Amino acid sequence: MAHIPLPDGLPGIRGPMAFRPETAKPLNELANILLHGPHSLTPGERELIATFVSAENECRFCQTVHGAIAAHHLGGDEALVQQVKADPETAAISPKLKALLVIAGKTAESGKLVTAEDVARARREGATDLEIHDTVLIAAFFCLCNRYVDGLATSMPESADYYRERAPLVAQFGYTMSTSAPAAPGGR
Amino acid sequence: MAHIPLPDGLPGIRGPMAFRPETAKPLNELANILLHGPHSLTPGERELIATFVSAENECRFCQTVHGAIAAHHLGGDEALVQQVKADPETAAISPKLKALLVIAGKTAESGKLVTAEDVARARREGATDLEIHDTVLIAAFFCLCNRYVDGLATSMPESADYYRERAPLVAQFGYTMSTSAPAAPGGR
Repeated sequence: MAHIPLPDGLPGIRGPMAFRPETAKPLNELANILLHGPHSLTPGERELIATFVSAENECRFCQTVHGAIAAHHLGGDEALVQQVKADPETAAISPKLKALLVIAGKTAESGKLVTAEDVARARREGATDLEIHDTVLIAAFFCLCNRYVDGLATSMPESADYYRERAPLVAQFGYTMSTSAPAAPGGR
Repeated sequence: MAHIPLPDGLPGIRGPMAFRPETAKPLNELANILLHGPHSLTPGERELIATFVSAENECRFCQTVHGAIAAHHLGGDEALVQQVKADPETAAISPKLKALLVIAGKTAESGKLVTAEDVARARREGATDLEIHDTVLIAAFFCLCNRYVDGLATSMPESADYYRERAPLVAQFGYTMSTSAPAAPGGR
């Protein structure tokens, strides 16, 4: 049971977002810019960063939701998502994304752990300043989301089908649908 | 030196916010709602939660900035801010705020650590559902800010005067001044 009364039928972050729409609006706007908007990193790459950080923080809801969205963007390759969560260095992803995931993983633990050499490696693999910035901010943002979801003891559906069915909606419409267009299908 | 080139003269979070104004906008809107807008917790209480979490995460910039803003709201009582950072239970704050700081501190470490008993204690001391929700979200938000500031290795002024001088500006104008009104004095 969640620590505060939350609307029925809205698992994970969607419950507290419906409870407090004022704060949900900037949270979803930030998610949309970082994960869904135009970017030199693909949506699949950015969702993998979100999924990896959420797995490092052991947030089941976030890693499952964003893992499903990542897999959707990656042609349904759920095995690749699992491999990135288990060990990015051996996963079939670009050397640049591997280097960015090192930065993301360290940011998740403590920003102070990110070294000049971590950043230099990412640059050698072709990462831009914006990609490095956004990797740090995506990781930091998911440290927020993971704690928001777990700190209020929100519920989550057990069936993987829930996440597989929602993923194409979020992939198509992005993260602001529940807080900017009341008539559209809701939230993540 | 910061990990990416940032504008000169903007310490801490202000550098990356100027580098990426698109993401700064929702971040500042969220800060404004959580810390500055109308609320049943005073601005001083909310800034103490932000300061305590930033101290737990050992983020020097955030704990110094928000500690100065908290002290400003609390009539200049810098000793009280130091005592809250050192041990909230022995500080001269309300029993409700002590209970909320337990929730904030656990959220900062991992949301999963917050127990039903922690929440029941806060309720016994008079905390509302919204205050419990916002305490978790302020703590989660500062886990973002602390990692954003430190993950990019931003610089910070050593002199306490910098923070003492900025605090009244933020206390008066809030957090959206740098991203919503170009002519106003900038950011936090």
